[in-house]
Amino acid sequence: MILPTFEHVQRAASVLQGVVHRTPIHTSRQLDDCSRATVFLKCENFQRVGAFKFRGAYHAVAHLKSQKPVVALSSGNHAQGIALACQLLGKAAHLVMPEPINRVKRAAVQDYGGIVHVPPRPQDAESFAENLVQTLGAEWIEAFNDVHVIAGQGTAALEFLDQVEDLDLILGPIGGGGLLSGTGLATHGVNPKAQVYACEPVGALDAMYSVKENRIVPQEHPQTIAEGLRTSVGTLTLPILRSHLAGFFVVEEHEILEAMRFIYERMKLVIEPASAVAVAPLLRKERILQGKRVGVIISGGNVDLGQYVAGFATQAHGVESEGC
Amino acid sequence: MILPTFEHVQRAASVLQGVVHRTPIHTSRQLDDCSRATVFLKCENFQRVGAFKFRGAYHAVAHLKSQKPVVALSSGNHAQGIALACQLLGKAAHLVMPEPINRVKRAAVQDYGGIVHVPPRPQDAESFAENLVQTLGAEWIEAFNDVHVIAGQGTAALEFLDQVEDLDLILGPIGGGGLLSGTGLATHGVNPKAQVYACEPVGALDAMYSVKENRIVPQEHPQTIAEGLRTSVGTLTLPILRSHLAGFFVVEEHEILEAMRFIYERMKLVIEPASAVAVAPLLRKERILQGKRVGVIISGGNVDLGQYVAGFATQAHGVESEGC
Repeated sequence: MILPTFEHVQRAASVLQGVVHRTPIHTSRQLDDCSRATVFLKCENFQRVGAFKFRGAYHAVAHLKSQKPVVALSSGNHAQGIALACQLLGKAAHLVMPEPINRVKRAAVQDYGGIVHVPPRPQDAESFAENLVQTLGAEWIEAFNDVHVIAGQGTAALEFLDQVEDLDLILGPIGGGGLLSGTGLATHGVNPKAQVYACEPVGALDAMYSVKENRIVPQEHPQTIAEGLRTSVGTLTLPILRSHLAGFFVVEEHEILEAMRFIYERMKLVIEPASAVAVAPLLRKERILQGKRVGVIISGGNVDLGQYVAGFATQAHGVESEGC
Repeated sequence: MILPTFEHVQRAASVLQGVVHRTPIHTSRQLDDCSRATVFLKCENFQRVGAFKFRGAYHAVAHLKSQKPVVALSSGNHAQGIALACQLLGKAAHLVMPEPINRVKRAAVQDYGGIVHVPPRPQDAESFAENLVQTLGAEWIEAFNDVHVIAGQGTAALEFLDQVEDLDLILGPIGGGGLLSGTGLATHGVNPKAQVYACEPVGALDAMYSVKENRIVPQEHPQTIAEGLRTSVGTLTLPILRSHLAGFFVVEEHEILEAMRFIYERMKLVIEPASAVAVAPLLRKERILQGKRVGVIISGGNVDLGQYVAGFATQAHGVESEGC
């Protein structure tokens, strides 16, 4: 098993040069006031396909030597990333998307020329995808447990550290750990003193336990609106996370909604729930963040408006009176 | 009556230097494909107070020679602009905000230290505001029919033309005409060949008739969700609009919702309905825009999520299937 290194991230950056957007940094006096920190948002919601996942997907597809079709299993941003990467690199993309499928993401995958396969039962998605790989004689790209994917995701932090000097900490959401593995490698390659924290919903807390117990604790019944964070960590991401993470922030569901609303109303940015997970510790003024220069990787902005607002209206009405 | 000129806009730019944000330009392959044009959005939703109105408000407050309190009548972005400008310049701000008041805008005005007055009856707002000016011995700043306000608003286009070369046309929404008067002065001061078009909701079509008939056609019963566009033009803005506008695009309500949704889903930007009015002509592929370099002034992003989505869900469900 080869683990990716900082050099993999650097090489990925040169492969991705001119293909990915160098996404902007947004700041807000109100967010700084609320958090008592100096906060920088790395806006990967403005990345192609609307999420950082394009980085890793493109990098992995670019490393394939054959012209075989590509299969990926994802109901989310990885599917979009693979679809667009294959379109740009002239390959056929087959995306296995188990229900429930986000309407926006499915439409986007099809816009990029991806062929969508919906397995009859969501619990059979993996065997369905394996069969598809056999039938098509296709290549298979994992969503996060892949050296090239991890290296690609790390390029977001590499850019971030080039755009903003002297970050004390970087926060990001954790699902399978691809983003934060790449972020850890990139951050400590550039500045060994900077700390990387993972932010995880209380209803999908497998990564924290996996890192603690040094084994993959499966994520069996995740309960969170942050759909991108419902997966378990992998054999590649676990050891990297253990080496690079300074700690975890555990986030409640109502905090996710409040953070989405804050960023939407005050900063005019559309962010998806997973991104809001990484903003929430700031809004509750985590002591460890106060007085620090904090970078947050806004993972993406692919949100189904209807879904989002339904949860929003029922849970987040307390925000206004709270102020901050 | 003194009409503002290009020189007023240039001087306003130096007053506003370092105070207003130089807002970014966003582009989108999808928007270009949909419109068959090359489109640049000037993102004044990222301006301080979330709207271009801060430019004119600050510029007008900065020109007051007395230390008297300031009164303004606005339920919207002008109120926020005046409140923040007064806070920065050490003056008291009294905002007369007739119902219905956007929750987000009211909270923001108060965050900036503005004192909110709600007139007992919306139709008496003007006399209520006049009384307040008398009682307080205050200064009064009009939302758009003011030389300094118009000059300040023009600085958005001045920046835009500096950021993007060779724009053929600039689109913006029209309510009282402050933004488009300033835009016309700035645009033609820089490039006499560029054309400025006003975009107006079909349910509030007074500006188009006013320009056509060369008299202020009052806006009596506006029917549009674009709350910022419900006002009539003024004595200063009408002659400037007549000199500088190349024409009008009339926009339906469902087009406003579709454009908001498009910009939200595809470009991850929170924009208010007034801004969507200026995007709509692109989405319907107006022939005059095809093949052109088109600039759109995104006026602001102050949206009450609840309000917005209510209209959205009932009207805009056709968007998905349409594609573009």
